[in-house]
Amino acid sequence: MTRAPYISIHVPSALNGQRPTTKDVIAAFVHEIGAGRLPGGSRLPPVRVLERQLGLSKNTVQIAYEELVARGLIVTRERDGAFVASRAAAHGLPLAVSEPPVPQLRPSPLLFASPPAEGMLRLSAVFIDPSLLPKERFSDCMRSVLRSPGLAPFYDAQGYLPLRQAIARRLELRGMDVRPENIVVTVGSQQALDIVCRALEVRRMATEDPVYPHARLLFESHALAVSGLPLDPFSPIDLDLWESRLRAHRPGLFYAITSFQNPTGYSYTTGEIQSVCELAARHQFALLEDDWGSDMLSDSEYRPSLRALGGENVLYVNSFTKKILPALRIGFIVARADQVPSLVAAKRLSTLASAPLMEAALEEFLSRGYYDTHLAELQRELDARYELCVASLRELMPAGVRWTTPGGGPTLWLDLPRAVDLTALRARMAERRVHIEDASFAFYGAPHLHGFRVSYAFLAPGDLRRALEMLSEEIRRS
Amino acid sequence: MTRAPYISIHVPSALNGQRPTTKDVIAAFVHEIGAGRLPGGSRLPPVRVLERQLGLSKNTVQIAYEELVARGLIVTRERDGAFVASRAAAHGLPLAVSEPPVPQLRPSPLLFASPPAEGMLRLSAVFIDPSLLPKERFSDCMRSVLRSPGLAPFYDAQGYLPLRQAIARRLELRGMDVRPENIVVTVGSQQALDIVCRALEVRRMATEDPVYPHARLLFESHALAVSGLPLDPFSPIDLDLWESRLRAHRPGLFYAITSFQNPTGYSYTTGEIQSVCELAARHQFALLEDDWGSDMLSDSEYRPSLRALGGENVLYVNSFTKKILPALRIGFIVARADQVPSLVAAKRLSTLASAPLMEAALEEFLSRGYYDTHLAELQRELDARYELCVASLRELMPAGVRWTTPGGGPTLWLDLPRAVDLTALRARMAERRVHIEDASFAFYGAPHLHGFRVSYAFLAPGDLRRALEMLSEEIRRS
Repeated sequence: MTRAPYISIHVPSALNGQRPTTKDVIAAFVHEIGAGRLPGGSRLPPVRVLERQLGLSKNTVQIAYEELVARGLIVTRERDGAFVASRAAAHGLPLAVSEPPVPQLRPSPLLFASPPAEGMLRLSAVFIDPSLLPKERFSDCMRSVLRSPGLAPFYDAQGYLPLRQAIARRLELRGMDVRPENIVVTVGSQQALDIVCRALEVRRMATEDPVYPHARLLFESHALAVSGLPLDPFSPIDLDLWESRLRAHRPGLFYAITSFQNPTGYSYTTGEIQSVCELAARHQFALLEDDWGSDMLSDSEYRPSLRALGGENVLYVNSFTKKILPALRIGFIVARADQVPSLVAAKRLSTLASAPLMEAALEEFLSRGYYDTHLAELQRELDARYELCVASLRELMPAGVRWTTPGGGPTLWLDLPRAVDLTALRARMAERRVHIEDASFAFYGAPHLHGFRVSYAFLAPGDLRRALEMLSEEIRRS
Repeated sequence: MTRAPYISIHVPSALNGQRPTTKDVIAAFVHEIGAGRLPGGSRLPPVRVLERQLGLSKNTVQIAYEELVARGLIVTRERDGAFVASRAAAHGLPLAVSEPPVPQLRPSPLLFASPPAEGMLRLSAVFIDPSLLPKERFSDCMRSVLRSPGLAPFYDAQGYLPLRQAIARRLELRGMDVRPENIVVTVGSQQALDIVCRALEVRRMATEDPVYPHARLLFESHALAVSGLPLDPFSPIDLDLWESRLRAHRPGLFYAITSFQNPTGYSYTTGEIQSVCELAARHQFALLEDDWGSDMLSDSEYRPSLRALGGENVLYVNSFTKKILPALRIGFIVARADQVPSLVAAKRLSTLASAPLMEAALEEFLSRGYYDTHLAELQRELDARYELCVASLRELMPAGVRWTTPGGGPTLWLDLPRAVDLTALRARMAERRVHIEDASFAFYGAPHLHGFRVSYAFLAPGDLRRALEMLSEEIRRS
């Protein structure tokens, strides 16, 4: 049951470090009640509470309350305590407190036209099948951390140092020259992108088109002017087109998802990575690389990245959450050491820090070698599911349907003949309890592709096959 | 040892879902090398890797590599694999990748002039003595969650529902009408303030003056125009002055720390809370209440708050991190149900979610009653330290020094005669290994107070006493 709060008053002499007397207590109540500032019926603090808060002996408050009862300003009820008498406030302000206005908040942005309903087969989900996630092994690491070193009372705003050391070692093996002082641990890669935006001086940026809608929405929420560079996963990047767009828009930063680009699933070639570095140098824009996808592909440890080839000026973002546990919420950003203070300051404004217990458990997970074992298992499984997906597409899809063949990893892009009405297809698939994404949110204008992402990472093989069978039937019916 | 990345290329026919032939593979390499896009010495993917990524049989790639060796475009070295021949790229672009420019980030803001050095006695720290924190009991809860229900693969962006239920029950007992759907769990109260700022339509706000510098810096980082309402912890709030300031500045939101205001330690009376609600209604500004401090005071469960008296329009922020474990990083915001979607959208842009494992452990901690037991112990201990602090101040401080008597909780404000040079005092105290804060960062202009926060929550009683003795000596020497 909700009880009314005690009223809280100051006894002026107490504000100056003096011990108030009974007279001071009485005067304070008389003044507040007389000014109509304590509504009739308000609960007074119990004698012992007011005593302690004012630093008084028991009798002082007891005597004050008795005097206030005698003056008719307060009433006492057995067990319930003391209350401001109703008539005492009758000449004052209304009893009810004025209602302050409703805060004016922006309406929630509409990101996805039709979110998947409960129980639908999610053919476009970028998550990994929970049955493939190392929940037990991560629990072991957490239990180990709870035993030793135990819970840390405080935090390092830059991130738990042993974790930063472990991440630096991993990145070195991927061809990047990174030290722990270059790393800022974040609450997933979303916070990594957010703190870059917070710290950024430039006001214009570019992304691929289509792009991960949550990233674009984030950039726009920081009042950045964002333009898109068209990406067609069925062709090499049209670098001449990109250069003309870059010359026209003059962005200060280019955000690139270089492996399994979201949503197209496209991966940059070495030559394209080289060319993007050249464009950046020629047109003087900085690079922000999001490498979420590369380590879901077999043998990806030697895959080139902007950070590996372009060097320390490239801001690099990655995350463990998709691959270990979406609920883990640990990502990181790699930056030049002289830029880390700005990013840490931005992180402090955002969340002060991230939870070091989770960071310590992740460090344990990495140091025991569980992550490498897990990645190897995951890559094997994703390879198999990729093969199944591509084989099913070859078998099932009618002529005119195309798909990319990224060679493994989590997703590919499926493109349909323009004659197929995607809105109608989504609706018919939804009736059959299969969710496919409306990718139009990811494009900057009229979509230059006509399809959507297919993820073979999320659905179990049988479900994936069934979903593709239904998809093929509905495409043929279009 | 860092190894160079493999080069990554596309074989154009593969982009369209066709199986590339040996001829396609050869053509792709000839084209890329001829265009100077693969520097001499670049590592080629091993045969088996390229096979899998392109979906080919073993011989296809092997034959292609042999043909490229024969053409002098690649060389193979025993064990190391295949590389682009040096002369092949000699006519092309420079071997080194162009270095992209350095991202332009804002310099890190200077928040604290002189952070405490390692090993100093921190007389102004708002943290609680780590020896008072329930690390073992929280570990128990975490272990219990790891057993059952175990790690959740996904998250609820609004926050783990059982935790929201537990928080709502607690707030009901504190006189607030709150349901789980009103609550958004956040990464500490810093994120709670941040997501309010992100969602906020108004561009002008007010805070108390002085105010928690991290909050003001956050508001300003969101390009909010912030003005201060003077707060003097030795006097009741000058409501007439506030009203004239509010009339002049016309803020859309007032951020108020109603209990143990940071840094003054001031707590609003019931009458003042009522008056602030009236001012809000009269001048049409919304209220954002930060209630971090109230539950560190004994018998604070019935303490009035803006949210309890002013109703559901008041945005209310609180956090468990200070009181349980600063490294926990769990706070929350309470809002009208119709405003929650905007706040959740803002949270998604910031971090997508917070870690549900930590939220589940906290729910266990609350549900077992550990938090209530802990708060009771903590309040008792803080009461005792408060008594010690005030008794020591009475005994030690020279005439002219004043301090507030908040009756318990974590902090009070100590004010010195204007003749005392605070900068010199800080320096002399630092020499004696005692850190006192430079509070001038918390004021909007020339400080109207001449002192700093004294925390009795952080230092062990013996250390607190020693620090106050040294402080008294140095004040007398001023």
